[in-house]
Amino acid sequence: MMTKITFDHCLELDAADPLAEYRSAFLLPEGLIYLDGNSLGALPAATPGVVADVVQRQWGADLIRSWTSNDWINAPLRVGAKIAGLIGAGPDEVIVGDSTSANLYKLIVAALEARPDRTIVLSEEGNFPTDLYMIHGAIATVGRGCRLETRPRETLADAITQEVALVLLTQTHYKTADKLDMAAMTARAHEAGALILWDLSHSAGAVEVDLNGAGADLAVGCGYKYLNGGPGAPAFLFVAKRHHGRLRSPLSGWMGHSSPFDFVDDYRPAEGIRRFLCGTPPILGIAALEVGVDLIARAGMARLAEKSRHLCSLMIDLVEQECDFAGLQLVTPREASRRGSHVSFRHPEGYAIVQALIEEGVIGDFRAPDILRFGFTPLYVGFADVWEAVQRLKTIMADRRWDRDDYRVRAAVT
Amino acid sequence: MMTKITFDHCLELDAADPLAEYRSAFLLPEGLIYLDGNSLGALPAATPGVVADVVQRQWGADLIRSWTSNDWINAPLRVGAKIAGLIGAGPDEVIVGDSTSANLYKLIVAALEARPDRTIVLSEEGNFPTDLYMIHGAIATVGRGCRLETRPRETLADAITQEVALVLLTQTHYKTADKLDMAAMTARAHEAGALILWDLSHSAGAVEVDLNGAGADLAVGCGYKYLNGGPGAPAFLFVAKRHHGRLRSPLSGWMGHSSPFDFVDDYRPAEGIRRFLCGTPPILGIAALEVGVDLIARAGMARLAEKSRHLCSLMIDLVEQECDFAGLQLVTPREASRRGSHVSFRHPEGYAIVQALIEEGVIGDFRAPDILRFGFTPLYVGFADVWEAVQRLKTIMADRRWDRDDYRVRAAVT
Repeated sequence: MMTKITFDHCLELDAADPLAEYRSAFLLPEGLIYLDGNSLGALPAATPGVVADVVQRQWGADLIRSWTSNDWINAPLRVGAKIAGLIGAGPDEVIVGDSTSANLYKLIVAALEARPDRTIVLSEEGNFPTDLYMIHGAIATVGRGCRLETRPRETLADAITQEVALVLLTQTHYKTADKLDMAAMTARAHEAGALILWDLSHSAGAVEVDLNGAGADLAVGCGYKYLNGGPGAPAFLFVAKRHHGRLRSPLSGWMGHSSPFDFVDDYRPAEGIRRFLCGTPPILGIAALEVGVDLIARAGMARLAEKSRHLCSLMIDLVEQECDFAGLQLVTPREASRRGSHVSFRHPEGYAIVQALIEEGVIGDFRAPDILRFGFTPLYVGFADVWEAVQRLKTIMADRRWDRDDYRVRAAVT
Repeated sequence: MMTKITFDHCLELDAADPLAEYRSAFLLPEGLIYLDGNSLGALPAATPGVVADVVQRQWGADLIRSWTSNDWINAPLRVGAKIAGLIGAGPDEVIVGDSTSANLYKLIVAALEARPDRTIVLSEEGNFPTDLYMIHGAIATVGRGCRLETRPRETLADAITQEVALVLLTQTHYKTADKLDMAAMTARAHEAGALILWDLSHSAGAVEVDLNGAGADLAVGCGYKYLNGGPGAPAFLFVAKRHHGRLRSPLSGWMGHSSPFDFVDDYRPAEGIRRFLCGTPPILGIAALEVGVDLIARAGMARLAEKSRHLCSLMIDLVEQECDFAGLQLVTPREASRRGSHVSFRHPEGYAIVQALIEEGVIGDFRAPDILRFGFTPLYVGFADVWEAVQRLKTIMADRRWDRDDYRVRAAVT
């Protein structure tokens, strides 16, 4: 039988935590327990200064000269190379720019063109919607009978037939945190002659990823979650070096041209990963993202992933120990190696409970129809935070504090 | 014969300028004459504070709640509606997001789908490269025999045949500033049953544009030029209301879904302009852009365009008066109604001359192979600035200060 976990034990874990010092590298409101870094990462303390410098000195004073003097022109490649180090990619295999959605589109179309005799894009039922929506948009544009097939996670591997051009999977599921075995699924795709595209939005900066170790072909990921790049931060895109020069970006903008400043009419894609750039890079967004990425790189992915596993396990154990009466059904795998860095529970009153938690200073989030989701970001969440969050959850559930009409009115998002 | 223009005359023009007060609404280095706002607009004085607030309070303190509490979710529509007022569009016809290039792609593909029996996208020879490159990328994806045809400006109208699905034109040419007659070309396109897409990158915020007056179908434009949105600012996109509901965006991301937060697998596009959104909106970039747009709106497009015409005419007249010896060949129309807000000259040593001007505190820019380009942004350029810029140009040309080897080495952009 498991020993009972105490608050003192959590304090001991914090005292022994080699990443504890990073808490002060983030600006978070006093008293708030922020368990939503998987949706919008917290603000690094260095970001306001860096953004102010980009705005006031680089833009305001250096003006147009900054494209060279402050190396704006290479920002997508420079920050891409830093992200590469976090996901097992080579420094010349990753670029930053556009949104995750737009990057998905580029690579879905590129993959369909690389497999002209195949028509299926295979993905998971209940994958993050934009993955499925971008497949929808891409196949409707490509035509030639291309279609999307979705399967439940358990039967995905078997569905990779010789007709499949591309397998597009989110490694860490945005609701359950269930993590797919990248190496095994990649091998299975290649066995069938398909390409594979990994969406790392809920993985990058949270768990150890080894794209090249797995032999992955393509990947995209989000800048504003675990990478702490700020709201709507630019996303990233990976193409394995062996595919460089062979894949084409449908979003063939001038920044992906071999000589963008020659201003010639004919499109000639750049060599290497730069051909997947499209328009002028979003400099403010990339500058903010770089601060977040630098912090993750400094802390080190291995240490970070280890603490993530530990935090998530503690959350699962504590909810079981303290809230067993509450009817919260764990939907995240117990086995640490099989999950990302968030923990989710199912409850029919999920939305109202999340509102009550926010009122009590614990920010998690809700995913329709009934998922309570808590993200554990090792750089600014500590073990005592987990204890405290569970205590507040316990009180809310015990006192039915969620049972208020105003907590049931979902904010209209239009 | 023209009266000689004097410095005193320029000072009088500044003294009588109703927009002179706006100069202090921008932060520009002391002594610098910035004639490159057509490439990267100057920094509004209010922008650092607004961006700092978005970073520190909205992101740092309000965190994920800002999507509703600070209305991040509606930022693309809110700022779009403001831009609409500058270009003769309805407030529900414009959104902000993605790059000009990506927005071009959305609308090229949408137009080709709306004209399934036609195969040609017609554009101008020497159009801004990304316009042509995005057509290239779009037709390669759509297939079905679609092709790009380019014509010189003079023969464009005659090339709009019954085979043309879409006419894609930049209203104000990025090199020459020659401005197309939007109403006439739109009418010509419609006569032939084609759709028309206007790139307003060098028009919006610089000249009076009346999209709905001209009956235009589609438009895109840049946020970082005359709108002063900052480096790589998000771009905008216009779809005339009569096309809403009929056109589909190939970049069908979750933010263009009718219910993005229902997280359903099936793609159902939003009604109205919102379906042309793609991924999560770039909040820092949109916030900075909004400041620039607000300034333009406050100054008023009519006053602004009038001063622009006056500044450009003064530049042309002064270069003629002061630098007639210099071999600078005007390539911008003399007739004010036929041009945008920049003035360009051809000179075989154009690149070196631009470098020498920068050294002397006058920032213009160079466009290969031989164009010197000077942008006149009415909110922060005055008439005496034009006088002073021309005096420095005169000295450079008279003393051959451009004739230095180090001015001939073009910065490698990779």
